[in-house]
Amino acid sequence: MNQEYTFTFDKTPSCVRMQEEFPPIDRIWADFESIRGDAVGQILLVCDTHTEYIVRDILGTQDRPWCVLPSGETAKNWTAVEAILNAGKEAGLGRDGLFIGVGGGVVSDLTAFAASIYMRGTGLCLVSTSLLGMVDAAVGGKTGFDLFGMKNLAGTFYPAPLIYMPLDSLLSLPKAEWKSGMGELIKTAVLDETDALLERLRLLGPEPPNSQDRAGRERIFASIARSVQIKGRIVEADPKETGVERARLNLGHTFAHALESAAGLGQVSHGEAVAWGVVRACELGYALGITPGERGRAITSLIKGWAYETRAPHPLLEEQGRIEAFMRALEGDKKKKAGKLRFIVPLAQGVQAVSAPAIEAGLVERIICGALDTSRLIY
Amino acid sequence: MNQEYTFTFDKTPSCVRMQEEFPPIDRIWADFESIRGDAVGQILLVCDTHTEYIVRDILGTQDRPWCVLPSGETAKNWTAVEAILNAGKEAGLGRDGLFIGVGGGVVSDLTAFAASIYMRGTGLCLVSTSLLGMVDAAVGGKTGFDLFGMKNLAGTFYPAPLIYMPLDSLLSLPKAEWKSGMGELIKTAVLDETDALLERLRLLGPEPPNSQDRAGRERIFASIARSVQIKGRIVEADPKETGVERARLNLGHTFAHALESAAGLGQVSHGEAVAWGVVRACELGYALGITPGERGRAITSLIKGWAYETRAPHPLLEEQGRIEAFMRALEGDKKKKAGKLRFIVPLAQGVQAVSAPAIEAGLVERIICGALDTSRLIY
Repeated sequence: MNQEYTFTFDKTPSCVRMQEEFPPIDRIWADFESIRGDAVGQILLVCDTHTEYIVRDILGTQDRPWCVLPSGETAKNWTAVEAILNAGKEAGLGRDGLFIGVGGGVVSDLTAFAASIYMRGTGLCLVSTSLLGMVDAAVGGKTGFDLFGMKNLAGTFYPAPLIYMPLDSLLSLPKAEWKSGMGELIKTAVLDETDALLERLRLLGPEPPNSQDRAGRERIFASIARSVQIKGRIVEADPKETGVERARLNLGHTFAHALESAAGLGQVSHGEAVAWGVVRACELGYALGITPGERGRAITSLIKGWAYETRAPHPLLEEQGRIEAFMRALEGDKKKKAGKLRFIVPLAQGVQAVSAPAIEAGLVERIICGALDTSRLIY
Repeated sequence: MNQEYTFTFDKTPSCVRMQEEFPPIDRIWADFESIRGDAVGQILLVCDTHTEYIVRDILGTQDRPWCVLPSGETAKNWTAVEAILNAGKEAGLGRDGLFIGVGGGVVSDLTAFAASIYMRGTGLCLVSTSLLGMVDAAVGGKTGFDLFGMKNLAGTFYPAPLIYMPLDSLLSLPKAEWKSGMGELIKTAVLDETDALLERLRLLGPEPPNSQDRAGRERIFASIARSVQIKGRIVEADPKETGVERARLNLGHTFAHALESAAGLGQVSHGEAVAWGVVRACELGYALGITPGERGRAITSLIKGWAYETRAPHPLLEEQGRIEAFMRALEGDKKKKAGKLRFIVPLAQGVQAVSAPAIEAGLVERIICGALDTSRLIY
C-alpha cells in the first residue's frame, strides 16, 4: 500500500509518504530537491543506536556523513543537539543542506530541532521508523528536547517538508514501543469527529502486526493513515497552537508530561503516560459534568483492556514526595494561558478545552491521588 | 524626538519606538499586551554586566525576576542561553510570558534566541542600548549564538514584536562600541538607493554625540532612524533571506564573519570587521568590473577617514596560519547557495550579489592577502 498526504502549515507544505519499503537515499535526495525547488548542497544522516543499521545497511548511504545518537528519552538533551550541529559543521553543510533523521520520536524531535536552528534553518526530511514517530512526532512541526527535568522545555515549530513512513519498519518494533505508539493512536482516535477510528482500534487489539497476516497489517496501516490525517488537519487549522484547535491534540498530555517529569524522564514511555493521562482527562471531564459517563467508559475500557496502567495514583507516584513533584510539574506546564492551566476533556463526540475557574481548586490533585469517587463510576 | 516605525515580517508586526528616555517597566508591559492583544502571564528581564544598572535603577523593575549575563561576544554561547531558559523556568514563565532583553547586540541576539525556543516561543521585547544593537541586532528577527568557533552557527528567525531604542543610552556609550555601531551604519548607508545617508554620515564624523550639542544629537538620531528604516524595508521584502533582497544586508559580512572567526571570536568588534569587509567588497567588485572606481573610493575613503582598519591582510591575519583559517571559515559560511559562496558588492548606486563562477578561483584569497593591484586603485 502507498498513501501520500500533503498538509500545509503556515504556508509550508509538508508531504507524508506512507509505503512499505524504505526509500533509497538517492530517492530522498531527489524528492527533497523537487519539493524545495532548489538544489541540496550536502546531506547529513542522523540516527540512534537502534536505527544505525538502517542507515548503514538499508538506505544506501555509504560515504555520506552521519551522526549516531544514544537512544531513548534520556538522550533527548542539548548534548545530542550539539552532536548533530557539530556533525553538520564538520561535514561542511550550509543553509542549503539537508538533515535526514532516521528513527522514532526522539530522533525526529532532535533532528528537527537541530535543523531548525542550524544556520537559522536548513533542510529537513524525517524517515519515521516507529509507531509513536508516525502518529505523533513526525507530523505537525513540533520539535524539542528536555531541559532542567522538563519535557520539551526548549523547542521550535519547524515542519519537515518531506516525511517517509516505511511501514516495514513496524514489523520489527519491540512490544514496548508498539504499546507507546498505540497510546497516542488511541488519543488521536478520541479527537475524531466520529468514533470510527476508536471502534476500529477496538477490533484490532493491542498487538503489533504479524508479517504473515497481510489483511491484519493493512488494517493497522489504514488506522495509522487515518490518524496521520486527523492530526494533519488539526495542525493545519492552528499550526503554532495560538488558537484552541491544536490544543485538542494535548488531550491527556498535561497529565502525561507531569507524570513523565515527576517519575523521572524515561521511567514511563510517552504513549503509556498519554494513555494514563487520557483516563485522568475522562475523570476530570466527568467530574465537571462535561464528559458523559458512557463516553468515558468507552474510552477507558479500551485503554484498560489493552493493559495500560490506568490507576490513580500511578504506581510511579506512590513514592514519598512524588505527588508534590507532579503538582509542581503541572504548574510549570507550557500550555498555560494567561497564567492558567488548560485541560482537554472528552465530549460525547470529540473533545473541548476547560480551564480555571471552571476547575475548582484541589480537584485535579484529588483525581491524581485517586481520591475521587468518579474514578469508580467511569469503568 | 520620538519616532515610531512598524515593519511586518512574515505577517508578524514589529514595532520600533525611538525616544530619548528609557521606558518604565509598566509601560513596556502594557505596550506589549496591547500589541499582542492578549495578557502577559509573567516577565523575565535579561541584561549583561554593562546594562545591569539600567534594569536595577532605571526601569523600575524591583521584585521582577531577572538574569544577568557576562558581557561581550565571548559570552554569546549556549551557557548564556541556558541561563536565560533556566531563569524563565525558575520564575514560572509559561508560553504566555515575556522576555525583555536590555542591552546591545549580544544581549539582543541571546534573549531573542532564548525566547524563540522557550516552550517553542514566548513573548519578546528588546530594549536596545547600543548603536550596534539599534542599527543591526534589534531589528529584523535574526537571533543566534556562536558555536564551535563559528559566528551564529545556531540561531532562528524570531522578530521582536516590540523594540525600544532609548537614545539617551548612547550618550554613555564607550568609544569602541560607538565605532563598532558606526561600521554597520556605514554598511547600511551603502545599500540605500541614494547616497543621502552616506553623505550625511560624512558630515557627522566618527564621534559619539555630545550631550550638550542638541542639534548634533538630533542629526545622529535622524541617521539612526533612517538606517532602521532602510533595514526594516529590506527585511520586510525577504524576512528569511530566501531570496536575494535580504542578502544585500550581508554586504561586507562574508569577509567580516571569516575575519572574526579566524582572529578568534571577540578579538575584533563586529562593526569594525564589517567596515574592513566593506572595503574588501569594494575591491572585489572593482576587480570584477562591477563597482565603479569612484564609488569604491567614496566608500573606502569614508571608512579610512574614520580610522577603521582597512589594510589587507588585516593585522590580526598576519600570524602564521591565520590566512588559511580565514579561508576555511569562508568556506563554512552559511550564506552559501547551492554550495557556492555569494558576495555582495557595491554598484554605482546600491549593491548586487555575485557568486562563482563569476569569481575566478584565488581572487578572494589575493584580495585578503593584499596581493591585488586594485587595492591601491580604490583609495
